[in-house]
Amino acid sequence: MSSADILRAPARATSSLIADAFVASDLPHADAARCADLMTEADLTGADGHGIFRLPQYVRRLKAGGFNKRPAIAVSRTAPATALVDGDNGMGHLVMSRAAAEAIAMARDTGIAWVGVRRSNHAGPAGLYAEMPAAHGMVGLYAAVANANHMATWGGAELLLGTNPLAIGVPTGDRPLVFDMATSIVAYGTVKKYALRGLTMPEGWFVDAKSGAPITDPNKSGAGLLLPMGEYKGSGLALMIGLIAGVLNGAAFGRDVVDFNADDDSATNTGHCIAAIDIARFLPLQTFTAEVDRHVRHLRASRLLPPADAIRLPGDRRAACRDERLREGVPIPTPLLAQLDRLAAELKITPLRER
Amino acid sequence: MSSADILRAPARATSSLIADAFVASDLPHADAARCADLMTEADLTGADGHGIFRLPQYVRRLKAGGFNKRPAIAVSRTAPATALVDGDNGMGHLVMSRAAAEAIAMARDTGIAWVGVRRSNHAGPAGLYAEMPAAHGMVGLYAAVANANHMATWGGAELLLGTNPLAIGVPTGDRPLVFDMATSIVAYGTVKKYALRGLTMPEGWFVDAKSGAPITDPNKSGAGLLLPMGEYKGSGLALMIGLIAGVLNGAAFGRDVVDFNADDDSATNTGHCIAAIDIARFLPLQTFTAEVDRHVRHLRASRLLPPADAIRLPGDRRAACRDERLREGVPIPTPLLAQLDRLAAELKITPLRER
Repeated sequence: MSSADILRAPARATSSLIADAFVASDLPHADAARCADLMTEADLTGADGHGIFRLPQYVRRLKAGGFNKRPAIAVSRTAPATALVDGDNGMGHLVMSRAAAEAIAMARDTGIAWVGVRRSNHAGPAGLYAEMPAAHGMVGLYAAVANANHMATWGGAELLLGTNPLAIGVPTGDRPLVFDMATSIVAYGTVKKYALRGLTMPEGWFVDAKSGAPITDPNKSGAGLLLPMGEYKGSGLALMIGLIAGVLNGAAFGRDVVDFNADDDSATNTGHCIAAIDIARFLPLQTFTAEVDRHVRHLRASRLLPPADAIRLPGDRRAACRDERLREGVPIPTPLLAQLDRLAAELKITPLRER
Repeated sequence: MSSADILRAPARATSSLIADAFVASDLPHADAARCADLMTEADLTGADGHGIFRLPQYVRRLKAGGFNKRPAIAVSRTAPATALVDGDNGMGHLVMSRAAAEAIAMARDTGIAWVGVRRSNHAGPAGLYAEMPAAHGMVGLYAAVANANHMATWGGAELLLGTNPLAIGVPTGDRPLVFDMATSIVAYGTVKKYALRGLTMPEGWFVDAKSGAPITDPNKSGAGLLLPMGEYKGSGLALMIGLIAGVLNGAAFGRDVVDFNADDDSATNTGHCIAAIDIARFLPLQTFTAEVDRHVRHLRASRLLPPADAIRLPGDRRAACRDERLREGVPIPTPLLAQLDRLAAELKITPLRER
C-alpha cells in the first residue's frame, strides 16, 4: 500500500474521535478523555496496534458488556511498599493509570513500591506506564499478561503464552529512556498492522503449529504460533512475567486467558504489575541524570557497525515518531478509516475527516 | 574433545579445593567456604563459566590485590524498602549474599525490598541470587553489570555494553522456577568454555568489529562483538540493566567498566541489584504455588512442535544438570585440570584428584 492510501489525521482529531466514541458508548467524560489521551500517545509514539486501531474493538466490548463502564477500582495497600489493585473489569487504561499513580505515591515514602493489578483489561503499549514513574524522577518497571495467547512454550505447539511485554523507563536530563519489549519476536499488534496493510511477514515470525513450517501471510497467523524473542529466552521470560503479573495478582494466565480478539463480552481478568523506584534514595537525581546523559553520549558517539547507519537506543524510534506525527499527523490506513467512518455513523458522532 | 578427556570430580572435591585455595590466598575460612559453596552450586547447575573455572583468575586477583580480602561490607537502609550495599571491593559472592539476605529480611516487613549494590565484584551466575528469595516464599529479581564489555550498542561497533544478565526466581510446590538470561545471544562464559574445549562457535554469536563478518573461532573473540539476544532488544535491555544495576548505585557502566579478564588489580566497582517480593502480601503462598504448579502442568503437557523432543521451562536444564552432576561429578576439561593442578602446587594444597 502506498502512502497515498494512508490519511494523516491530526492527533487532536484522532483523540477527540476516540473520546466522543467512548462518551457515546456511555463511558463517563473524564474516563473517556483519559483513555483517549493514552491511546493517542500510543498512536503518536508509533504503537500503531494500540491506539485508534483498537477503538472499534473497544466500542464493541463496551456495547457487549465486556467492560464495566462504571468500575469501582479498589486499591488495597497490602504492606508498606506493596498494593493490589482490583480493576473491577474497567478499561485497562483507567486501571493502570490508577495503579501507576499509586506506585509513584507509595515509592515517595518507601523508596520502592510494587503494585499488582487484577481484573483489569488491555491497557495499550507497555511503555506508556513505564514512562509514568520516569516523569517523577523514578525508575519505572512494568509488565503485563497479554490479552490473547499467541505463543507456545519453547518446544511446544499449543497457544499457552502471551507476548507478555516488559517495559523500563529511566529519566535522563532530556526525554526519558523508555525500553518496551514484547517477549515475542514482534508484538502481535505489528502482525495486525501487517494484515490491515496487506503486507507479507518475514520468515521467522510465525510457524505452523502442526508442521513448524513458516507462515508469512498475516491473515493466516490464526493457525500459527508466534515465535518468542531469542528462542527459549523469550518463552521463559513470557512465562515468568505471566506468573508475576498474572498468577501473583490472582489474574488470568495460561489456559485461563480470554482471547479478547475473539470474545467481546467475557471479563478478561487481565493482570499487570508496575514498580516505581525513587532514584533520590540512591543518589541525587541530578547526579543520576547527568551520569545517564554522559553514558548516552558515549553510546551515541560509537563507531558504526556495517551496514548500520545509526545507533538506536531505547525510545529513539518512539521519540522520533512522536515528533514527526505531531507535525504530520497520525497515519490512518484506508481500511481502518472505513471502520472508523462506519463507527462514527453508528454512534452518531462527527467522522474523523470532519474534525 | 571426547568425554574421555574430561574428568568427573565429585562436588565435595571441587568445593574443598576452592575453599582451600581461598584460605591459602588469605581469605577468612567462613568467606572461603561461602564462595566455595556458591561456585560449586554454579558448577552443579551447569554454569560452567562461573564455577571452579574461575578459581585461577580469582586467586590471581586475590594475590594482585584486586579483591579486598577483609572487606567491611556496609548496608545502608536508604528508605523503608530500599538499601544500598557498599561491597568495599570484597569478593562478589560475599557482597551479593549479604545483599540478598538484606532484601529478604526487609521484604518481610515492607512487602517488597530493592537493594542496590556498588563496589562489588563478579559474583557468578545470576540465577544463584534470584533463587535465594524464592527459597523464602518470595519472588526474586536480580540483575548485574557484567565485568567486561563484550557487546556494542545496537548499530555500533565499540565494546560499551556487557552481557548484563537478568534472573527471576519463583517458588513452586517443588523446585523453584529460575530464569537466568544473559542479554547477549550467549553468555560470555559459554564462549570461554568453547575456547577451553577447542570447539567452534556457531555463526550468529560473534561478528568482526570492522567488517561485521561472522567470527567462529572462540580464541578470536577478542577482536569481535558478541551479538545481543533478539537484536536491538538485547542491546536495549543490557543498557537499561546497566543504568539500574550500575549507574543508580554509583557503580561502573559503559566506558568505566574494568575488564577483569585483562586486569587483576584494579577495583571493578561492580554493580548489582536484587529485589525480593513477598508473595504472601498478594495471596497465600500455598495458593500461589498450587496455581503455578497447575500452569506448569499445562505447559509440560503441551503437544510438541516438530522437531522438538521436549518442553523446556526455565530452570529445567539446571535442575537436570544438578541431579546428574551430584551423581556423576562435575566435568573438568583437561586444560582446566592442568591449571588447577598448577594452582594446587603453587598454593601447596591437595590437588583435585587426591581429594
